[in-house]
Amino acid sequence: MPVKTAYISVSTKGNRDVVDLTPRLRQAVHSHGIEAGIAVVFAPGSTAGITTIEYEPGLKQDIDTFLEKLIPYGGDYRHHETWHDDNGSSHLQAALIGPQCTVPIVDGDVALGTWQQVVLIDCDTRARKREILIQMIC
Amino acid sequence: MPVKTAYISVSTKGNRDVVDLTPRLRQAVHSHGIEAGIAVVFAPGSTAGITTIEYEPGLKQDIDTFLEKLIPYGGDYRHHETWHDDNGSSHLQAALIGPQCTVPIVDGDVALGTWQQVVLIDCDTRARKREILIQMIC
Amino acid sequence: MPVKTAYISVSTKGNRDVVDLTPRLRQAVHSHGIEAGIAVVFAPGSTAGITTIEYEPGLKQDIDTFLEKLIPYGGDYRHHETWHDDNGSSHLQAALIGPQCTVPIVDGDVALGTWQQVVLIDCDTRARKREILIQMIC
Repeated sequence: MPVKTAYISVSTKGNRDVVDLTPRLRQAVHSHGIEAGIAVVFAPGSTAGITTIEYEPGLKQDIDTFLEKLIPYGGDYRHHETWHDDNGSSHLQAALIGPQCTVPIVDGDVALGTWQQVVLIDCDTRARKREILIQMIC
Repeated sequence: MPVKTAYISVSTKGNRDVVDLTPRLRQAVHSHGIEAGIAVVFAPGSTAGITTIEYEPGLKQDIDTFLEKLIPYGGDYRHHETWHDDNGSSHLQAALIGPQCTVPIVDGDVALGTWQQVVLIDCDTRARKREILIQMIC
Repeated sequence: MPVKTAYISVSTKGNRDVVDLTPRLRQAVHSHGIEAGIAVVFAPGSTAGITTIEYEPGLKQDIDTFLEKLIPYGGDYRHHETWHDDNGSSHLQAALIGPQCTVPIVDGDVALGTWQQVVLIDCDTRARKREILIQMIC
Protein backbone atom coordinates (compact mmCIF):
# COMPACT_ATOMS: atom_id res chain seq x y z
CA MET A 1 0.00 0.00 0.00
CA PRO A 2 1.69 3.20 -1.17
CA VAL A 3 -0.03 5.65 1.22
CA LYS A 4 1.26 6.21 4.77
CA THR A 5 -0.23 8.58 7.35
CA ALA A 6 1.45 10.17 10.36
CA TYR A 7 0.42 12.86 12.80
CA ILE A 8 2.53 15.50 14.51
CA SER A 9 1.10 16.93 17.77
CA VAL A 10 2.07 20.55 18.27
CA SER A 11 1.41 22.98 21.12
CA THR A 12 1.61 26.59 19.97
CA LYS A 13 1.34 30.01 21.54
CA GLY A 14 -0.88 31.23 18.69
CA ASN A 15 -0.34 34.81 17.47
CA ARG A 16 1.80 33.74 14.51
CA ASP A 17 3.92 31.34 16.52
CA VAL A 18 6.26 29.56 14.09
CA VAL A 19 6.96 25.88 14.85
CA ASP A 20 9.58 23.79 13.05
CA LEU A 21 7.99 20.52 11.90
CA THR A 22 11.05 19.21 10.07
CA PRO A 23 12.58 16.82 12.66
CA ARG A 24 9.29 14.98 13.13
CA LEU A 25 8.50 15.06 9.40
CA ARG A 26 11.89 13.50 8.79
CA GLN A 27 11.24 10.92 11.50
CA ALA A 28 7.92 9.98 9.86
CA VAL A 29 9.61 9.47 6.50
CA HIS A 30 12.42 7.43 8.04
CA SER A 31 10.20 5.29 10.27
CA HIS A 32 8.18 4.23 7.22
CA GLY A 33 11.38 3.59 5.26
CA ILE A 34 10.21 5.61 2.28
CA GLU A 35 12.89 5.91 -0.40
CA ALA A 36 11.08 8.03 -3.01
CA GLY A 37 7.77 9.86 -3.07
CA ILE A 38 6.15 12.93 -1.59
CA ALA A 39 5.01 14.08 1.84
CA VAL A 40 1.97 16.36 2.05
CA VAL A 41 2.16 18.37 5.28
CA PHE A 42 -1.38 19.57 6.03
CA ALA A 43 -2.85 21.69 8.82
CA PRO A 44 -6.48 20.77 9.55
CA GLY A 45 -8.22 23.98 10.65
CA SER A 46 -8.55 27.43 9.14
CA THR A 47 -6.33 29.59 11.35
CA ALA A 48 -2.91 28.03 10.68
CA GLY A 49 -0.66 27.88 7.65
CA ILE A 50 2.19 25.67 6.42
CA THR A 51 5.16 26.94 4.42
CA THR A 52 8.96 26.71 4.47
CA ILE A 53 11.43 29.18 5.95
CA GLU A 54 14.95 29.25 7.28
CA TYR A 55 14.01 28.53 10.86
CA GLU A 56 15.95 31.01 13.01
CA PRO A 57 14.75 33.40 15.74
CA GLY A 58 15.14 36.60 13.72
CA LEU A 59 13.01 35.39 10.84
CA LYS A 60 10.39 33.95 13.19
CA GLN A 61 9.96 37.45 14.55
CA ASP A 62 9.96 38.99 11.07
CA ILE A 63 7.09 36.71 10.01
CA ASP A 64 5.09 37.65 13.10
CA THR A 65 5.69 41.37 12.49
CA PHE A 66 4.94 41.20 8.77
CA LEU A 67 1.66 39.28 9.07
CA GLU A 68 0.41 41.41 11.97
CA LYS A 69 1.18 44.60 10.05
CA LEU A 70 -0.40 43.33 6.82
CA ILE A 71 -3.54 41.95 8.49
CA PRO A 72 -3.76 43.54 11.95
CA TYR A 73 -5.57 41.98 14.89
CA GLY A 74 -7.41 45.25 15.53
CA GLY A 75 -8.72 45.59 11.97
CA ASP A 76 -12.40 45.69 11.02
CA TYR A 77 -13.53 42.17 10.03
CA ARG A 78 -17.04 40.99 9.08
CA HIS A 79 -16.07 37.56 10.44
CA HIS A 80 -16.40 38.96 13.97
CA GLU A 81 -20.06 39.72 13.37
CA THR A 82 -20.75 36.10 12.40
CA TRP A 83 -19.41 34.47 15.55
CA HIS A 84 -18.68 37.37 17.90
CA ASP A 85 -15.10 36.22 18.17
CA ASP A 86 -11.84 38.09 17.59
CA ASN A 87 -9.83 36.06 15.09
CA GLY A 88 -10.77 37.47 11.69
CA SER A 89 -7.14 38.43 11.15
CA SER A 90 -6.07 34.84 11.95
CA HIS A 91 -8.33 33.47 9.23
CA LEU A 92 -7.05 35.87 6.58
CA GLN A 93 -3.41 35.29 7.49
CA ALA A 94 -3.88 31.50 7.32
CA ALA A 95 -5.75 31.62 3.99
CA LEU A 96 -2.92 33.69 2.54
CA ILE A 97 -0.15 31.31 3.67
CA GLY A 98 -2.23 28.25 2.80
CA PRO A 99 -2.77 25.05 4.80
CA GLN A 100 -0.31 22.72 3.11
CA CYS A 101 3.13 22.17 1.67
CA THR A 102 4.11 19.15 -0.40
CA VAL A 103 7.75 18.09 -0.11
CA PRO A 104 9.49 15.57 -2.40
CA ILE A 105 11.17 12.55 -0.80
CA VAL A 106 14.38 11.54 -2.58
CA ASP A 107 16.96 8.94 -1.48
CA GLY A 108 15.08 8.23 1.72
CA ASP A 109 14.86 11.82 2.95
CA VAL A 110 12.87 15.03 2.44
CA ALA A 111 14.54 17.03 -0.34
CA LEU A 112 14.71 20.36 1.50
CA GLY A 113 17.44 22.93 1.04
CA THR A 114 20.17 23.11 3.68
CA TRP A 115 18.63 26.17 5.35
CA GLN A 116 15.02 25.30 4.67
CA GLN A 117 12.56 23.97 7.22
CA VAL A 118 8.87 23.10 7.00
CA VAL A 119 7.00 25.22 9.51
CA LEU A 120 3.57 25.69 10.97
CA ILE A 121 2.52 29.30 11.46
CA ASP A 122 -0.28 29.34 14.03
CA CYS A 123 -2.23 32.53 13.37
CA ASP A 124 -4.97 32.01 15.95
CA THR A 125 -5.34 34.54 18.76
CA ARG A 126 -4.70 32.06 21.55
CA ALA A 127 -2.54 29.05 22.40
CA ARG A 128 -3.64 25.96 20.48
CA LYS A 129 -2.98 22.26 20.25
CA ARG A 130 -2.73 21.10 16.64
CA GLU A 131 -2.58 17.69 14.98
CA ILE A 132 -0.62 18.19 11.78
CA LEU A 133 -1.22 15.50 9.20
CA ILE A 134 1.60 14.01 7.11
CA GLN A 135 0.34 12.07 4.11
CA MET A 136 3.13 10.20 2.37
CA ILE A 137 2.77 8.74 -1.13
CA CYS A 138 5.48 6.35 -2.23
CA MET B 1 -4.76 2.42 -11.66
CA PRO B 2 -4.11 4.69 -8.69
CA VAL B 3 -4.92 8.03 -10.39
CA LYS B 4 -8.50 9.30 -10.67
CA THR B 5 -9.60 12.56 -12.28
CA ALA B 6 -12.76 14.57 -11.67
CA TYR B 7 -13.92 18.01 -12.74
CA ILE B 8 -16.02 20.54 -10.86
CA SER B 9 -17.87 23.10 -13.02
CA VAL B 10 -18.24 26.42 -11.26
CA SER B 11 -19.95 29.66 -12.29
CA THR B 12 -18.53 32.65 -10.46
CA LYS B 13 -19.20 36.37 -10.27
CA GLY B 14 -15.47 37.14 -10.51
CA ASN B 15 -14.16 40.02 -8.38
CA ARG B 16 -12.90 37.73 -5.61
CA ASP B 17 -16.02 35.64 -5.48
CA VAL B 18 -15.38 32.79 -3.02
CA VAL B 19 -16.94 29.42 -3.95
CA ASP B 20 -17.03 26.41 -1.63
CA LEU B 21 -15.75 23.34 -3.52
CA THR B 22 -15.92 20.96 -0.55
CA PRO B 23 -19.26 19.17 -1.16
CA ARG B 24 -18.29 18.27 -4.73
CA LEU B 25 -14.72 17.43 -3.74
CA ARG B 26 -16.13 15.08 -1.12
CA GLN B 27 -18.50 13.57 -3.67
CA ALA B 28 -15.60 12.91 -6.05
CA VAL B 29 -13.64 11.12 -3.31
CA HIS B 30 -16.67 9.07 -2.28
CA SER B 31 -17.79 8.17 -5.80
CA HIS B 32 -14.35 6.72 -6.51
CA GLY B 33 -14.38 4.90 -3.17
CA ILE B 34 -10.95 6.18 -2.22
CA GLU B 35 -9.95 5.14 1.29
CA ALA B 36 -6.50 6.72 1.58
CA GLY B 37 -4.51 9.10 -0.60
CA ILE B 38 -4.50 12.74 -1.63
CA ALA B 39 -6.67 15.04 -3.70
CA VAL B 40 -4.99 17.85 -5.63
CA VAL B 41 -7.52 20.63 -6.23
CA PHE B 42 -6.22 22.68 -9.15
CA ALA B 43 -7.53 25.78 -10.92
CA PRO B 44 -6.49 25.89 -14.58
CA GLY B 45 -6.08 29.56 -15.50
CA SER B 46 -4.09 32.41 -14.02
CA THR B 47 -6.75 34.61 -12.42
CA ALA B 48 -8.13 32.27 -9.74
CA GLY B 49 -6.69 30.78 -6.57
CA ILE B 50 -7.40 27.78 -4.35
CA THR B 51 -6.99 27.77 -0.58
CA THR B 52 -8.96 26.78 2.52
CA ILE B 53 -11.08 29.01 4.75
CA GLU B 54 -13.97 28.73 7.16
CA TYR B 55 -16.67 29.30 4.57
CA GLU B 56 -19.09 31.81 6.04
CA PRO B 57 -20.45 35.11 4.64
CA GLY B 58 -18.43 37.43 6.87
CA LEU B 59 -15.09 35.90 5.95
CA LYS B 60 -16.01 35.78 2.25
CA GLN B 61 -16.42 39.54 2.42
CA ASP B 62 -13.20 39.97 4.43
CA ILE B 63 -11.23 38.13 1.74
CA ASP B 64 -12.72 40.31 -0.98
CA THR B 65 -11.94 43.48 0.99
CA PHE B 66 -8.42 42.40 1.91
CA LEU B 67 -7.32 41.37 -1.59
CA GLU B 68 -8.84 44.48 -3.23
CA LYS B 69 -7.11 46.73 -0.71
CA LEU B 70 -3.75 44.93 -1.07
CA ILE B 71 -3.82 44.77 -4.87
CA PRO B 72 -6.41 47.31 -6.06
CA TYR B 73 -8.26 47.09 -9.36
CA GLY B 74 -7.37 50.70 -10.13
CA GLY B 75 -3.63 50.25 -9.59
CA ASP B 76 -0.98 50.82 -12.20
CA TYR B 77 -0.09 47.48 -13.87
CA ARG B 78 2.28 46.83 -16.78
CA HIS B 79 0.12 43.82 -17.66
CA HIS B 80 -2.51 46.22 -19.01
CA GLU B 81 -0.04 47.50 -21.58
CA THR B 82 0.58 44.00 -22.92
CA TRP B 83 -3.03 43.09 -23.69
CA HIS B 84 -4.95 46.35 -23.16
CA ASP B 85 -7.16 44.61 -20.64
CA ASP B 86 -8.01 45.51 -17.06
CA ASN B 87 -7.19 42.47 -14.92
CA GLY B 88 -3.60 43.00 -13.77
CA SER B 89 -4.83 42.99 -10.17
CA SER B 90 -6.59 39.64 -10.78
CA HIS B 91 -3.35 38.04 -11.94
CA LEU B 92 -1.36 39.26 -8.94
CA GLN B 93 -4.05 38.22 -6.45
CA ALA B 94 -4.24 34.74 -7.98
CA ALA B 95 -0.45 34.26 -8.08
CA LEU B 96 -0.32 35.19 -4.39
CA ILE B 97 -3.03 32.73 -3.33
CA GLY B 98 -1.72 30.04 -5.66
CA PRO B 99 -3.65 27.76 -8.03
CA GLN B 100 -3.80 24.58 -5.97
CA CYS B 101 -4.36 22.94 -2.63
CA THR B 102 -3.54 19.32 -1.86
CA VAL B 103 -5.76 17.66 0.73
CA PRO B 104 -5.07 14.28 2.38
CA ILE B 105 -7.73 11.58 2.14
CA VAL B 106 -7.97 9.47 5.30
CA ASP B 107 -10.59 6.82 6.17
CA GLY B 108 -12.49 7.46 2.96
CA ASP B 109 -12.89 11.22 3.39
CA VAL B 110 -10.97 14.47 2.96
CA ALA B 111 -9.13 15.21 6.20
CA LEU B 112 -10.26 18.81 6.61
CA GLY B 113 -10.85 20.50 9.94
CA THR B 114 -14.43 20.87 11.14
CA TRP B 115 -14.62 24.53 10.11
CA GLN B 116 -12.37 24.27 7.08
CA GLN B 117 -13.53 24.27 3.47
CA VAL B 118 -11.62 24.15 0.19
CA VAL B 119 -12.52 27.25 -1.80
CA LEU B 120 -11.96 28.82 -5.18
CA ILE B 121 -11.32 32.55 -5.12
CA ASP B 122 -12.09 33.91 -8.57
CA CYS B 123 -10.07 37.10 -8.92
CA ASP B 124 -10.98 37.91 -12.50
CA THR B 125 -12.79 41.17 -13.23
CA ARG B 126 -15.88 39.53 -14.71
CA ALA B 127 -18.14 36.52 -14.21
CA ARG B 128 -16.42 33.30 -15.28
CA LYS B 129 -17.14 29.64 -15.82
CA ARG B 130 -14.35 27.46 -14.41
CA GLU B 131 -13.53 23.77 -14.66
CA ILE B 132 -11.71 22.91 -11.45
CA LEU B 133 -9.62 19.78 -11.70
CA ILE B 134 -9.48 17.21 -8.90
CA GLN B 135 -6.59 14.79 -9.27
CA MET B 136 -6.78 11.95 -6.76
CA ILE B 137 -3.84 9.66 -6.01
CA CYS B 138 -4.61 6.55 -4.01
CA MET C 1 7.90 2.23 -9.79
CA PRO C 2 5.42 5.10 -9.79
CA VAL C 3 7.79 7.90 -8.67
CA LYS C 4 10.02 9.76 -11.15
CA THR C 5 12.43 12.57 -10.33
CA ALA C 6 13.80 15.27 -12.61
CA TYR C 7 15.81 18.43 -12.02
CA ILE C 8 15.65 21.76 -13.79
CA SER C 9 18.79 23.91 -13.59
CA VAL C 10 18.00 27.61 -13.59
CA SER C 11 20.22 30.69 -13.56
CA THR C 12 18.41 33.72 -12.19
CA LYS C 13 19.15 37.40 -11.66
CA GLY C 14 17.61 37.28 -8.19
CA ASN C 15 15.57 40.31 -7.07
CA ARG C 16 12.23 38.70 -7.93
CA ASP C 17 13.37 37.42 -11.29
CA VAL C 18 10.52 35.34 -12.75
CA VAL C 19 11.58 32.25 -14.73
CA ASP C 20 9.19 30.12 -16.78
CA LEU C 21 9.69 26.44 -15.87
CA THR C 22 6.89 25.10 -18.07
CA PRO C 23 8.81 23.94 -21.17
CA ARG C 24 11.22 21.87 -19.10
CA LEU C 25 8.45 20.63 -16.80
CA ARG C 26 6.57 19.48 -19.88
CA GLN C 27 9.71 17.84 -21.23
CA ALA C 28 10.18 15.92 -17.97
CA VAL C 29 6.61 14.63 -18.10
CA HIS C 30 6.93 13.64 -21.74
CA SER C 31 10.35 12.03 -21.43
CA HIS C 32 9.02 9.74 -18.69
CA GLY C 33 5.91 9.01 -20.76
CA ILE C 34 3.57 9.78 -17.88
CA GLU C 35 -0.09 9.60 -18.91
CA ALA C 36 -1.82 10.47 -15.63
CA GLY C 37 -0.59 11.66 -12.24
CA ILE C 38 0.83 14.75 -10.63
CA ALA C 39 4.04 16.76 -10.82
CA VAL C 40 5.26 18.48 -7.66
CA VAL C 41 7.47 21.42 -8.64
CA PHE C 42 9.61 22.24 -5.61
CA ALA C 43 12.26 24.90 -4.96
CA PRO C 44 14.88 23.73 -2.45
CA GLY C 45 16.01 26.80 -0.52
CA SER C 46 14.19 29.48 1.42
CA THR C 47 14.49 32.56 -0.81
CA ALA C 48 12.55 31.41 -3.89
CA GLY C 49 8.90 30.63 -4.53
CA ILE C 50 6.91 28.62 -7.06
CA THR C 51 3.48 29.61 -8.36
CA THR C 52 1.67 30.00 -11.68
CA ILE C 53 1.17 33.15 -13.73
CA GLU C 54 0.52 34.19 -17.28
CA TYR C 55 4.16 34.52 -18.24
CA GLU C 56 4.49 37.81 -20.11
CA PRO C 57 6.87 40.75 -19.59
CA GLY C 58 4.32 43.15 -18.12
CA LEU C 59 3.20 40.77 -15.40
CA LYS C 60 6.79 39.77 -14.60
CA GLN C 61 7.42 43.43 -13.81
CA ASP C 62 4.16 43.75 -11.85
CA ILE C 63 5.19 40.84 -9.61
CA ASP C 64 8.59 42.41 -8.98
CA THR C 65 7.00 45.78 -8.16
CA PHE C 66 4.29 44.32 -5.94
CA LEU C 67 6.57 42.12 -3.83
CA GLU C 68 9.20 44.84 -3.41
CA LYS C 69 6.54 47.33 -2.31
CA LEU C 70 4.89 44.86 0.09
CA ILE C 71 8.15 43.62 1.63
CA PRO C 72 10.84 46.19 0.77
CA TYR C 73 14.54 45.41 0.59
CA GLY C 74 15.30 48.37 2.84
CA GLY C 75 12.91 47.35 5.61
CA ASP C 76 13.93 46.56 9.17
CA TYR C 77 14.38 42.79 9.56
CA ARG C 78 15.58 40.84 12.60
CA HIS C 79 16.94 38.22 10.19
CA HIS C 80 19.78 40.61 9.34
CA GLU C 81 20.94 40.57 12.96
CA THR C 82 21.24 36.78 12.93
CA TRP C 83 23.55 36.45 9.94
CA HIS C 84 24.56 40.04 9.16
CA ASP C 85 23.23 39.62 5.63
CA ASP C 86 20.73 41.67 3.65
CA ASN C 87 18.05 39.27 2.43
CA GLY C 88 15.36 39.36 5.12
CA SER C 89 12.90 40.64 2.53
CA SER C 90 13.78 37.70 0.23
CA HIS C 91 12.90 35.20 2.95
CA LEU C 92 9.54 36.79 3.70
CA GLN C 93 8.60 37.10 0.03
CA ALA C 94 9.48 33.43 -0.59
CA ALA C 95 7.59 32.19 2.49
CA LEU C 96 4.53 34.08 1.30
CA ILE C 97 4.58 32.65 -2.24
CA GLY C 98 5.52 29.18 -0.98
CA PRO C 99 8.16 26.77 -2.31
CA GLN C 100 6.00 24.43 -4.36
CA CYS C 101 3.17 23.97 -6.80
CA THR C 102 1.55 20.64 -7.61
CA VAL C 103 0.20 20.29 -11.14
CA PRO C 104 -2.06 17.47 -12.36
CA ILE C 105 -0.94 15.42 -15.35
CA VAL C 106 -3.84 14.40 -17.62
CA ASP C 107 -3.66 12.72 -21.03
CA GLY C 108 0.11 12.79 -21.04
CA ASP C 109 0.52 16.51 -20.35
CA VAL C 110 0.42 19.03 -17.51
CA ALA C 111 -3.15 20.27 -17.13
CA LEU C 112 -2.38 23.99 -17.12
CA GLY C 113 -4.67 26.66 -18.51
CA THR C 114 -3.84 28.09 -21.93
CA TRP C 115 -2.32 31.25 -20.47
CA GLN C 116 -0.89 29.67 -17.33
CA GLN C 117 2.77 28.86 -16.74
CA VAL C 118 4.59 27.41 -13.74
CA VAL C 119 7.20 29.92 -12.64
CA LEU C 120 10.04 30.30 -10.21
CA ILE C 121 10.24 33.68 -8.49
CA ASP C 122 13.78 34.11 -7.21
CA CYS C 123 13.54 36.58 -4.33
CA ASP C 124 17.18 36.50 -3.27
CA THR C 125 19.20 39.70 -3.43
CA ARG C 126 21.75 38.38 -5.90
CA ALA C 127 22.01 36.18 -8.98
CA ARG C 128 21.59 32.50 -8.10
CA LYS C 129 21.83 29.07 -9.65
CA ARG C 130 18.90 26.86 -8.62
CA GLU C 131 18.15 23.17 -9.01
CA ILE C 132 14.36 22.93 -9.14
CA LEU C 133 13.06 19.49 -8.29
CA ILE C 134 10.20 17.87 -10.21
CA GLN C 135 8.70 14.89 -8.40
CA MET C 136 6.22 13.00 -10.55
CA ILE C 137 3.75 10.47 -9.14
CA CYS C 138 1.96 8.30 -11.67
